[in-house]
Amino acid sequence: MTETKMNGAESLVHTLLANDVDVCFTNPGTSEMHFVAALDHIPGMRSVLVLQENVATGAADGYYRMAGKPASTLLHLGPGLANGLSNLHNAKKAGSGVVNIIGEHASTHIELDAPLTSDIEGIARPVSHWVRSSKSAQDVGKDAAEAIQAAMVAPGQIASLILPSDTAWNEDGEAQEAIEMPVPAPFDESQLEQAVAALGGEETLLLLGGQALTESNLEIAGKISAKTGCAILSEWANGRMERGVGRVYIDRVPYPIDLALKALAPYKRIVLIGARAPIGFFAYPGKPAILTREGAEITKLANAGADLTAALAALCSATGADDTPPAHVSEPTQAVRPTGPITLEAIADLVALSIPENGIVVDESLTSGRAFSPATKGAAPHSWINNCGGSIGYSMPTSIGAAVACPDRKVMCLTGDGSAMYTVQSLWTMARENLDITVVVFANRSYQILRGELTNVGVGNPGPRAIDMLSLDRPALDWVQMAQSMGVEAQRVADCETLDAALEDALANSGPNLIEIVL
Amino acid sequence: MTETKMNGAESLVHTLLANDVDVCFTNPGTSEMHFVAALDHIPGMRSVLVLQENVATGAADGYYRMAGKPASTLLHLGPGLANGLSNLHNAKKAGSGVVNIIGEHASTHIELDAPLTSDIEGIARPVSHWVRSSKSAQDVGKDAAEAIQAAMVAPGQIASLILPSDTAWNEDGEAQEAIEMPVPAPFDESQLEQAVAALGGEETLLLLGGQALTESNLEIAGKISAKTGCAILSEWANGRMERGVGRVYIDRVPYPIDLALKALAPYKRIVLIGARAPIGFFAYPGKPAILTREGAEITKLANAGADLTAALAALCSATGADDTPPAHVSEPTQAVRPTGPITLEAIADLVALSIPENGIVVDESLTSGRAFSPATKGAAPHSWINNCGGSIGYSMPTSIGAAVACPDRKVMCLTGDGSAMYTVQSLWTMARENLDITVVVFANRSYQILRGELTNVGVGNPGPRAIDMLSLDRPALDWVQMAQSMGVEAQRVADCETLDAALEDALANSGPNLIEIVL
Repeated sequence: MTETKMNGAESLVHTLLANDVDVCFTNPGTSEMHFVAALDHIPGMRSVLVLQENVATGAADGYYRMAGKPASTLLHLGPGLANGLSNLHNAKKAGSGVVNIIGEHASTHIELDAPLTSDIEGIARPVSHWVRSSKSAQDVGKDAAEAIQAAMVAPGQIASLILPSDTAWNEDGEAQEAIEMPVPAPFDESQLEQAVAALGGEETLLLLGGQALTESNLEIAGKISAKTGCAILSEWANGRMERGVGRVYIDRVPYPIDLALKALAPYKRIVLIGARAPIGFFAYPGKPAILTREGAEITKLANAGADLTAALAALCSATGADDTPPAHVSEPTQAVRPTGPITLEAIADLVALSIPENGIVVDESLTSGRAFSPATKGAAPHSWINNCGGSIGYSMPTSIGAAVACPDRKVMCLTGDGSAMYTVQSLWTMARENLDITVVVFANRSYQILRGELTNVGVGNPGPRAIDMLSLDRPALDWVQMAQSMGVEAQRVADCETLDAALEDALANSGPNLIEIVL
Repeated sequence: MTETKMNGAESLVHTLLANDVDVCFTNPGTSEMHFVAALDHIPGMRSVLVLQENVATGAADGYYRMAGKPASTLLHLGPGLANGLSNLHNAKKAGSGVVNIIGEHASTHIELDAPLTSDIEGIARPVSHWVRSSKSAQDVGKDAAEAIQAAMVAPGQIASLILPSDTAWNEDGEAQEAIEMPVPAPFDESQLEQAVAALGGEETLLLLGGQALTESNLEIAGKISAKTGCAILSEWANGRMERGVGRVYIDRVPYPIDLALKALAPYKRIVLIGARAPIGFFAYPGKPAILTREGAEITKLANAGADLTAALAALCSATGADDTPPAHVSEPTQAVRPTGPITLEAIADLVALSIPENGIVVDESLTSGRAFSPATKGAAPHSWINNCGGSIGYSMPTSIGAAVACPDRKVMCLTGDGSAMYTVQSLWTMARENLDITVVVFANRSYQILRGELTNVGVGNPGPRAIDMLSLDRPALDWVQMAQSMGVEAQRVADCETLDAALEDALANSGPNLIEIVL
């Protein structure tokens, strides 16, 4: 590809495509116009326009989780990157690979400190594993290839490539061919013996995360559990977990601090595969931050960047479980179709009954969804996605990325109203791309989770000003109008029958729609 | 105030109030719950809830521009700050003072790398002049007072104070009394002689920015212009400019590169008061970045942080203009009430006729508003606010801050549709606080400015994929439904008569409303 004369922007697009990065979530500006032009005449890149950059970065996160390869983002200078920073934080914590392309002023222009000039590397660094500013058009192809390599380091990394506009418009670009991508590191074989010994004892937990939660790896974990009697759990937040009927069910370490302590108290020995030793989401006055029981023996067999399939296979063989049928295989859900007033339990049952075969559930339901995990274990087989970074507003963007990655699968986005407002612009992109996403908004008209947190941090009897800071009911948000204003069909439901019908209707049709559940 | 036992959060609130910081734009989370509790039982702080942090930071920007003192923001850890980063960038470029309070995990929790852990100082630094993490509850009061001092350094600075949650909940807080605030630096008297000499010559421009654009300072500039024959211009983007009938009118250096070069070409000598030497907003291939004519003599009498009133007064006396009546005083607008189809010229006339006495205009009209400046020079006296950082989505948040700062003044927010979508969550806060803001959305259903920029950077004949990345018409946004979904009254207009009536209606009533102009 290097024989034809091309500018830096064209070399970028060719290099991305040669290395299988063929989706770009973007909101471009002046400094990115040459990339827009290059995308125009070089076929092969699916460009998805978003109306605020946190939608782009969250979409890239969801894309990686479902496609297993990075998408690119194309962002307008420091402020465009800044707008997408919090979902890059979430992506980083989820172990998702993302290739950010950030336009910058021409090299000669930066020192003039124009209005849009900022320290782009400084903004990128806190959320990036890899940051580089290209020095010339000639470097862009090579730099882009290395950015993709960096993004593919297991489990996935954030790579941010900053391209001064002269590196885009100058004519000595050199596209790179497909280059070799990194493979996961070996797991820590030196810990295998200790892990086997731990599993030979009582009160042992196998704690899983990341790629240990694929269908086949969970099956191996189920075998080990059946053979050794160990418990299995996952971390509270998982990038992606395969679940549903016929698959090995695994519960999550709970979010609420007291429940988490209780869930982990039984275990003297913990073997980690792709998970970290459990800690509190927040610190609370007078409560421990380390959630495991005092003196628990923790064996780190494999971190999230290691070959977790190999780790589980080795552990399975070493415990003699290869021929043991797995434990914890989910039976079909026994949920009875609920009727009458909507309760959180009824919603959980209706979600369980509604999840479509091979569906993708993006979960940002927070307090409304605490009952979802056990209730849905016998639902149709599906992928379940959590927020791993704790910054709200991840679910609609992530749903966009998942839907772009898997056009043949239906996406259910379960979100609180406060969270959904953070990246409400997502609805427009869902409509524009006609993505097969059903957004279910739990409209409790409050940051409900914070009412509990106020108590947890020791604030009793909050007064009206405090409660007001956690309330979204003045005025109430009208989610039906909101969705329709951006071209997404929507309805509001207030009892189980209409919710049931709305879910059935939404999932029977393709394209985006929204259901507001007034709680 | 130090005799009573209080926690760090309480010492913060007392210190802010003692130093006249009595507004807080916030979206708090768990790590900020003690501040929420403190705001609850300590009267005096107006807390304004927003649904996304870029609304909070943009509001703080607008508040400073109109109140001349900083508001605080209360943000949830690194991601909460990250969400507000781009409007902090704009505030920084505008010379607005902001006191950011950013919650952080308890000191002992940070090293555990919980989901929400991030490098908060790293995220804050690119947009902040001053960054500090408090070490203990005892330090919080002192640190907060210094943050306010830092924010008040002329023309205004971004101060970011990071408070680990244990510094909020520990009980040895010490509130600070009112402390001395910084005053503007002296202007550069050594340049006065050269400035006077320049003004004695031909083809001289007095270029103004920042606090040089108050009503009284503009009057002085008008006297100097009348006496010496110099031209006066302001920078393209101004934090705030006083305009309207009876005031000295000053044109802005245009945004489009060719127009800017043309506007500045006549001047051999330029005297800067609160302005920087003009440079291009972007670099364009084959065009200069320095906008002044080659060899122009530039005299820097006072930068934005200096005492601009003193600089202008000294220059006025030194040129013997003290008793000269000012030139360029605006006559009442002669605009004839337009009828029929909406054109950009008609909108400009209707805006000029509608600006209320003592109104505040927040301008993010971009391509739709290129005719506004001359058309509105004879409107009723008003303040005009520009975006100084170039990151779109500043106008609705800034309008919120302006309305909170000036409850007796009407705010007109003139915004493109693409810009408005960036911080569309603002509408809810306008409704919640019943702010007297009329939002006028110019719905051209495109990033129109970028179509021009595509040409400017040398991309001819853009194809359908490029055009598609700049288009917002698939689907069209319904701004009436959008506003109503967040509790703001709205109407759509498509001709001059209905626009005229809508503006009259909107401005006759208090409270927020939105007018969508379909272009």
